[in-house]
Amino acid sequence: MSAREAFGRLMAHARETAALEQVAGRLGWDQETMMPRGAAEQRGEELAAMEGVLHARRADPRLGAWLAEAGAGTGAGPAEPVAAAQLRQIARAHARACKVPVALAREIARVTSLAQGEWAEARARDAVAPFLPRLTEVVRLKREEGQALADGGDPYDALVDDYEPQMTGADIAAMFSALRPRLVALRERVLGAAQHPPALDGSFAAETQTRMARRLAMIFGYDFSRGRIDFSVHPFTSGSGNDVRITTRVAESDPFNCFYSTIHEAGHAVYEQNVDPDYLLTPIGCGASMGVHESQSRICENQIGRSRAFTAWLFAEMRDRFGEFGTATEEEFFATVNRVQPGYIRTEADEVHYNLHIMLRFDLERALIRGELAVADLEAAWNDRFAADFGVAVDRPSNGMLQDVHWSAGLFGYFPTYALGNLYAGCLHQAMRADLPGLDANLAAGDPGEAIAWLREKVHRHGALNPPAETIRLACGFAPEAGPLLDYLEAKFGAIYGL
Amino acid sequence: MSAREAFGRLMAHARETAALEQVAGRLGWDQETMMPRGAAEQRGEELAAMEGVLHARRADPRLGAWLAEAGAGTGAGPAEPVAAAQLRQIARAHARACKVPVALAREIARVTSLAQGEWAEARARDAVAPFLPRLTEVVRLKREEGQALADGGDPYDALVDDYEPQMTGADIAAMFSALRPRLVALRERVLGAAQHPPALDGSFAAETQTRMARRLAMIFGYDFSRGRIDFSVHPFTSGSGNDVRITTRVAESDPFNCFYSTIHEAGHAVYEQNVDPDYLLTPIGCGASMGVHESQSRICENQIGRSRAFTAWLFAEMRDRFGEFGTATEEEFFATVNRVQPGYIRTEADEVHYNLHIMLRFDLERALIRGELAVADLEAAWNDRFAADFGVAVDRPSNGMLQDVHWSAGLFGYFPTYALGNLYAGCLHQAMRADLPGLDANLAAGDPGEAIAWLREKVHRHGALNPPAETIRLACGFAPEAGPLLDYLEAKFGAIYGL
Repeated sequence: MSAREAFGRLMAHARETAALEQVAGRLGWDQETMMPRGAAEQRGEELAAMEGVLHARRADPRLGAWLAEAGAGTGAGPAEPVAAAQLRQIARAHARACKVPVALAREIARVTSLAQGEWAEARARDAVAPFLPRLTEVVRLKREEGQALADGGDPYDALVDDYEPQMTGADIAAMFSALRPRLVALRERVLGAAQHPPALDGSFAAETQTRMARRLAMIFGYDFSRGRIDFSVHPFTSGSGNDVRITTRVAESDPFNCFYSTIHEAGHAVYEQNVDPDYLLTPIGCGASMGVHESQSRICENQIGRSRAFTAWLFAEMRDRFGEFGTATEEEFFATVNRVQPGYIRTEADEVHYNLHIMLRFDLERALIRGELAVADLEAAWNDRFAADFGVAVDRPSNGMLQDVHWSAGLFGYFPTYALGNLYAGCLHQAMRADLPGLDANLAAGDPGEAIAWLREKVHRHGALNPPAETIRLACGFAPEAGPLLDYLEAKFGAIYGL
Repeated sequence: MSAREAFGRLMAHARETAALEQVAGRLGWDQETMMPRGAAEQRGEELAAMEGVLHARRADPRLGAWLAEAGAGTGAGPAEPVAAAQLRQIARAHARACKVPVALAREIARVTSLAQGEWAEARARDAVAPFLPRLTEVVRLKREEGQALADGGDPYDALVDDYEPQMTGADIAAMFSALRPRLVALRERVLGAAQHPPALDGSFAAETQTRMARRLAMIFGYDFSRGRIDFSVHPFTSGSGNDVRITTRVAESDPFNCFYSTIHEAGHAVYEQNVDPDYLLTPIGCGASMGVHESQSRICENQIGRSRAFTAWLFAEMRDRFGEFGTATEEEFFATVNRVQPGYIRTEADEVHYNLHIMLRFDLERALIRGELAVADLEAAWNDRFAADFGVAVDRPSNGMLQDVHWSAGLFGYFPTYALGNLYAGCLHQAMRADLPGLDANLAAGDPGEAIAWLREKVHRHGALNPPAETIRLACGFAPEAGPLLDYLEAKFGAIYGL
C-alpha cells in the first residue's frame, strides 16, 4: 500500500468515527434537554455501548499499520499542512485509545452517565453523603484512566492533555501563579472601593427574555438553520459542523444570566459552525481545544458583550422590551452589568472572581486524581479554600462542591481550560482591537459582526489545524500570556470603580 | 466452549446491539422532531455510520460459531422458551445481515435519510418530478436488498418478512381477498345511507388540545416518566424499554386528529413500556412485529377510543374544556367521531375506508419492488386506482402518492402490517369483550385501565417471545382471521347509519 492509499483509508475511517462521535455527543445533549428521567439507567448502557464502538474504532490495529505507512510521526509524513494535521490528530487519538482498556472506557461512560443524574438529585437535595460513593467510583475510574494514559507519569497531566493538548498541570500552575497576584490585588481594590454599582432589580418576563436571547445569539453570528436553542440547568453547546446546538436558562429575576449565558454558548457554537466546511466530519473539523473554545465564548460574553459600547445598545434594547427597570443611564447600566461581588457560584461569577473559582477547582481535582485528597475530605477542603479565597463561608453543598456537573461527568482536567480560555481571550482581544479601530461604534449599534468576522478569519475557520497555543499565536501575532487579560481587567474595573 | 457459555456470549453481544439500536432509533426521532434543517446531509452520514456499526455487529462471524455451539436451529437448543426465543431472534437477525452487503445497508441508511427530507419538501410544494430520481434510487436499493435477502425468491416477500416475520405477499393478498368484499359492500351501504352524521365544526384552542392529549395518553397507560410527547408532521412512536417517545399534531379545526393520533401512539408506546422488564435491551424486549404493534395502537384508538361508551366520556370532557361546540347529544357525538367519508389521506381515514388505502399501497409497492411498475408510472397508477376504489379523482400529489413518508424512508413491505394490525385488533377485541363484560361501564367513566391491563397480560408483557400470529393466537384463544373485524365494523356502522 502506498502512503497515499494509507492516508485515504485513514481519512475514510476517521470520517465514520467523526460521524459516530457526533451521534454520541447528541445523546449527551438529549440527556440534558429531552430525556425522560426514567431512562437514566438505560441511557447509561447506550452511552457505554457507543463508547465501546468508538474506542474499538480508535484502537483499531489497522490504524497503526496505516499510520506507519502514511509516515505519521516521521519526516516522511505529508508536507501539506492540512494532511499533516489530520494525520497528527488520528495518531494522537489512536495512541490514547490503545493505552486505555476498552472495558475501562465503557465503564467510565456508563458510570458517568449515571452519576450525572445522581449529582442533579444530590444537588437538588443538598445531600452530599449519599452521592459520595458514586463520586468515589468516578474518581477511581478516571485516576485509573489517567494512570493508563500517563505511562508512569502524572495521571492528572494525562487527563488535562485530553482537553488541552500539550498542556500539563505544571504549565497551568505556572499560569495561575502569573495571574493570581494581580487578580487578588485587583479584587481587594475593587471590594474596597468607595462606591459600588447597584444590582439589577425587578422581574423580567421569561418569554421576552427568551426572544431577546434568540436575537442575541443571532447577532453574534449563530446560524439557527444549523442549530437550535433549548433550556437546561447548566447552559452548554453540543455538536460540530452543521448541527451545533446550544442551551440557555431563564430566571425572571436575572435576565443577565440568560443573556450572557446565551452569548457565551453562541460564542462556542459559532466557532464550530464557522470551521472550514472542507473539514466537516474530519479530525480537524472542530475547535482546537477546550481552552481555545472557551476563549471564543468568553471574548463574546465579556470583552465584547460586557463592553461599554455593547452594553449601551443592550440598555436601550432592554428598555424597549421591558420598559423602565430602574437603571437611569448607560454608564450605570454598564457598571451594573459588570458589578463585582463575591459569590458562591462559578457560572455567575464576575470577571474579577471567575479565575479564582477555577484555581480552587484545579488544586482540588489535581489532588483527587493524584490520590492526595480523598473524596470523603473534598467537602471540607472545598469549604476551607473557599473561605480563604472569597472571605465567605459556604452555606450549603449546592453552593459549594455540588454546584458543577463536571466531576460527576468525569471531566477531571477540564476546569483549568476555562481560565486558559480567559487568558487566550485577553490576548485575542488586544490583537482584535489593534486591527479594528472602529469596533466600538459598531458595538454601540448592537453589531458585533466585525469582531465575529475577525475571529472567523483568525481562529474559527482553522478548526484544529494547529495545536492550541499555536492557534492563538497565529491569530494574535504573539505567544499567549497573562498580561493582556490582566491589563484589560485592571483598566475596565479601574474605570468602573474609580480606582 | 459449552452451549451455556456460547449462549452467554450471544446475549452479551445482543444486549450491546440492542442498546445501539436504541441510539440509532433516537436519531430518527430527533430527525423528525428536533433536528435543524441544515443538518440533513450530515445526519445522513451519521445514520449511515450507525447502520454500518449495527450491520457489522449483526453479521459478526463469531455469532455464527456461537449460534452453532448454542444449538440454534437444531433440536439441541435450549428447551426453556425465553432462551429459545432469544436464540431464534439472534439467529434471524444474523442470517438476514449476512445476506446484505454492508455497503448496501449503509447506502440505504444514507439515501433514505436524505430522501425523507426531500420528500417533505416535495410534498410541501406538490412537486413530484424533482423527487422521482431520489425515489427511483430508494426503490432500486430496496429491491437490491430484497433480492439479496430472498435467495432467488420474491424480493417483496423478503422485505415484508422484516416487519412481519413468517408473512408473505401471498398471505397478505389472501387476507385482503377475505377482507375486501365485505368492506366494499359495507362502504357502499354506508355511503348510500339516508342520513349522515354532521362533521365537527368550529375552532378548538391548540393549548387545550395539547393538555387534553397528554391526559388521554395518561389514561391509556402511557408512563411519562419513561417517555415524552412532542409534535411532528406525522405522529409516530420511537424507542423501547424505558425511553419510549411519542409525537402528535394539533390543528385547531380538527381536535379529533390530535386526540386519536395521541391515543394511537400511546397504544404503541404502552406496548413497549409494558414489555417484561427482564427483557430490557434483549432481542425479545420489543413488540412482536409491526402488525402486532399496530393491533395495539388500533384497538386503543378505534375499538376502545371510538366506542360508544368512551366517546360519551370524551363528549363531556370536550364540553368541559372547550364549552358548547355545536354537538347536542352523546349519540350525535359518537356518530360524528365515526363519520364515514371518502378522503384522500390514509391517516385521516375512517375505519371503513382505512384498509382500502392499504390495499392500494400494497399492490403498488409490491409491483415496484418486483419491477412490474416503474417509479415514473407510479403517480398515474396511484391516481387510477384511487379513482376506482374511492370514486374521487386525486387533486394533487400531496393528497396522492406524496402523502406518506414510508416509501421515501425505504419502508417497502410495511404498509400491509397496518391492515394486519386492524385484523388482529378485531380478534383481540372480540376476546377482550368476552373476558371483560363490565368494560363499557369503565369506558363511559373515561377509564380504559381494565382493557390496558388485559392487553398487558395477554400481549404486552411477552414482547417478541412468540412469533406474531402465535402471539395473537395465544392472546385470543383462536388463530387470527378477518371475521371478527368485519363483524365489528358491520355492527358498529350498521347501528350508526341505521342500515
